[in-house]
Amino acid sequence: MEQLKRKIEEEGTVLSEEVLKVDSFLNHQIDPELMLAVGEEFSSLFQGEGVTKIVTIESSGIAPAVMAGLKLGVPVVFARKRQSLTLTDNLLTASVYSFTKKTESTIAISAGHLSEDDNVLVIDDFLANGQAAKGLVSIVEQAGAKVCGIGIVIEKSFQHGRKELDELGIRVESLARIASLKGGKVTFLQEVRS
Amino acid sequence: MEQLKRKIEEEGTVLSEEVLKVDSFLNHQIDPELMLAVGEEFSSLFQGEGVTKIVTIESSGIAPAVMAGLKLGVPVVFARKRQSLTLTDNLLTASVYSFTKKTESTIAISAGHLSEDDNVLVIDDFLANGQAAKGLVSIVEQAGAKVCGIGIVIEKSFQHGRKELDELGIRVESLARIASLKGGKVTFLQEVRS
Repeated sequence: MEQLKRKIEEEGTVLSEEVLKVDSFLNHQIDPELMLAVGEEFSSLFQGEGVTKIVTIESSGIAPAVMAGLKLGVPVVFARKRQSLTLTDNLLTASVYSFTKKTESTIAISAGHLSEDDNVLVIDDFLANGQAAKGLVSIVEQAGAKVCGIGIVIEKSFQHGRKELDELGIRVESLARIASLKGGKVTFLQEVRS
Repeated sequence: MEQLKRKIEEEGTVLSEEVLKVDSFLNHQIDPELMLAVGEEFSSLFQGEGVTKIVTIESSGIAPAVMAGLKLGVPVVFARKRQSLTLTDNLLTASVYSFTKKTESTIAISAGHLSEDDNVLVIDDFLANGQAAKGLVSIVEQAGAKVCGIGIVIEKSFQHGRKELDELGIRVESLARIASLKGGKVTFLQEVRS
């Protein structure tokens, strides 16, 4: 997605060979127009899949997921990373290891918001080591529902998450794929379209 | 806002005289169409105020804030409730006491995303005791920016938050005002429009 790649080039900050900061439009400040375009792109990519629900994870997944939900005409459920007072239902949970923070955490969705008839599109802001996405897939499968695709805003293709998701046999679409952050520079993967 | 009130009546669950659960469209599952309507309502209410930025707080404030940002044509910044790896900047913080959880927490926004030229609309999902909204107002003021209004999706008018915000002299607009949750029933405030 060219508009997104240009935004990353213009406003992204390479903090290390593994960390890209996009706090000006996705992870702290949000650009609503760009998120609408991101949602339209996800909708266009997955509109033939019969999506009934979008599942994402707080907090940075919410804006792109809600815009995709608006365009696909389906509700969005966001997994919580911490306990919430009114989240008292029967919870579906998954354990997610963060390589950056080196901590294990639990993510949760109320069982009542997923049914075995659901055909779920998983959306997240970043794909690095794939742990969050795999946790979301696990939760959807615990509900007996099907995952028809995974939509990622920014994929760090030099980490192993993409390979792990591909091995699940699920369709993955990333709107910007980063080959490298070496030399303080964002280099996108050169994709060959047949 | 009638559409929102009907949704609360149809899908809200009264957990106690103080707690209303709206996990099916706002706090866990999100209804994107309703959020768009909420954003349009905020935009219509505050369009004459010269808003340059919206400030909200993760996670449930993000969807209504992003839709309002889309309609007003301004960026959204969400305050974080916890540390984040790439949030390394100079932080503006406020301490927020939660009456429900009986805990004190710190919310933060990077100083780089607010300037003294900003005219900020604060948006949040719920107004109960006003602590989160007051924390956001404090952060905006620390940046030397102005708060031109506060937009709330659901106000529990029987708690003291509305009074505290009114005392700040800031315009507050709540899309649904709840007078009482007694008897397991949602009773809206009867508003007299002159």
